[in-house]
Amino acid sequence: MSDGDAATAFAPGHVTGFFSVERTETPERTGSRGAGITLSAGVTTRVEPSDETRVRLNGREVAVESVTRVLDALDATAAVSAETELPLGAGFGVSGAMALGTALAANSAFDAGLSVNDLVSVAHAAEVEAGTGLGDVVAQARGGVPIRVKPGAPAHGRLDGVPDAGRVEYVSFGGLSTSDVIGGDTATLSAAGEDALAALREHPTLPRFMALSREFSREAGLLDGDVEAAVEAVTDAGGEAAMAMLGETVFALGTGLSDAGYDPEVCRVHPAGATLDP
Amino acid sequence: MSDGDAATAFAPGHVTGFFSVERTETPERTGSRGAGITLSAGVTTRVEPSDETRVRLNGREVAVESVTRVLDALDATAAVSAETELPLGAGFGVSGAMALGTALAANSAFDAGLSVNDLVSVAHAAEVEAGTGLGDVVAQARGGVPIRVKPGAPAHGRLDGVPDAGRVEYVSFGGLSTSDVIGGDTATLSAAGEDALAALREHPTLPRFMALSREFSREAGLLDGDVEAAVEAVTDAGGEAAMAMLGETVFALGTGLSDAGYDPEVCRVHPAGATLDP
Repeated sequence: MSDGDAATAFAPGHVTGFFSVERTETPERTGSRGAGITLSAGVTTRVEPSDETRVRLNGREVAVESVTRVLDALDATAAVSAETELPLGAGFGVSGAMALGTALAANSAFDAGLSVNDLVSVAHAAEVEAGTGLGDVVAQARGGVPIRVKPGAPAHGRLDGVPDAGRVEYVSFGGLSTSDVIGGDTATLSAAGEDALAALREHPTLPRFMALSREFSREAGLLDGDVEAAVEAVTDAGGEAAMAMLGETVFALGTGLSDAGYDPEVCRVHPAGATLDP
Repeated sequence: MSDGDAATAFAPGHVTGFFSVERTETPERTGSRGAGITLSAGVTTRVEPSDETRVRLNGREVAVESVTRVLDALDATAAVSAETELPLGAGFGVSGAMALGTALAANSAFDAGLSVNDLVSVAHAAEVEAGTGLGDVVAQARGGVPIRVKPGAPAHGRLDGVPDAGRVEYVSFGGLSTSDVIGGDTATLSAAGEDALAALREHPTLPRFMALSREFSREAGLLDGDVEAAVEAVTDAGGEAAMAMLGETVFALGTGLSDAGYDPEVCRVHPAGATLDP
């Protein structure tokens, strides 16, 4: 709902454990298959009609192509201000959350009259075209522990979920460029992602998701350094940890990272998809 | 997750504003199209493996066919106990919420290894076969303000949503038998439901949903007595109210019923679908 003309929306963070890439001619049909966890830590985005489009993140002016593409699609000129406690460029889907939050809030602020699926489609296409994500938006629109069975926007894609919930911990050691990884050769990575997806769908539980994610990051050649050390430390302590795709981030179930001696951020599986603030 | 062997799940209540009926040979493809609101008031269902299946609702032993059908489908013998503040048989989808909550909790308690879509499908089919509901389960699995675009379980149906949130009030004056209404001739009702759905999809907002729901209940010949009086009183006071399908229940946005002098129960649009308690 709008507060005067302004409106605010929340989108959960999203860590992907494994994925495969599917590129097509159209952004709505392009995306990734795979699975991840949406997080109660997320992004709150406020949209206010304005003479000039400006985008702020945690108080600083930023250029976020997915956000400006969403505004263009809704024919909206607005001041967008987003706040998040999540680290940037570390695999939490912050650009996807901003794009989706902007879509929901702008729809309300400008009374654009689109449905939830329409808005998810606009945000998904904006992320794909900006090259900043392939699967975060549809996952963040669903909430929970999304399984991306078929890639793409709601009219084309298909989601399922792991029926589980609980505490999640994470630590970040830095960033990886999403566009460097998903822009390059993804054949090996996609083959590993397809195997993991099939195995998860046979028995969709959180511990199995974590084990398959660890295996994926090894097979994709992405697990090394601080991230590998943390994943191993959690495993040695009897916990479940994995690497977030794509960032120098480790996430764990329950108290996995704490038990291994780390000082993690703590959140939970987010039960809901992105929502407009009433 | 399980507490010992027991597990607990929450499913939101759901009031339908308008609908059309689609019957096919298979329960998974049978269902209703239409739209409604999921409510933060809902049903909490606990499932514990047991030598004998027993179902309790608010402490009393009850026979709920949709619940026993779900347990049969999961090959589970269990003590099910559900608690709710919602009135029974008054259009809040309590049987659907119990079926869905039982599916989620039993999957966890018995480590059945089904996905969210599998569990929604089991609960939806159980409701259809029991004759107690056609669209509540898929709506309660989604949360928010679900639009049921195509009927049926996840593999066949399709959902969208109205991107809005906020306070909801309700009063109940008694019950209507769902099976009496949806078991009889539904041609007139379905034609009115299809018109309302098309009109909502053109501009999916909450106020429009309420207006279309009022119109539907009139066209379907279901609006009379206390319910009609309450809907009119809210409208006269400048608010938005409609009748819940199928029950002697009026729901309103914001403070609609309070403003009209009623003493309603208060809840909110529930942002999430049914979830397992961690």
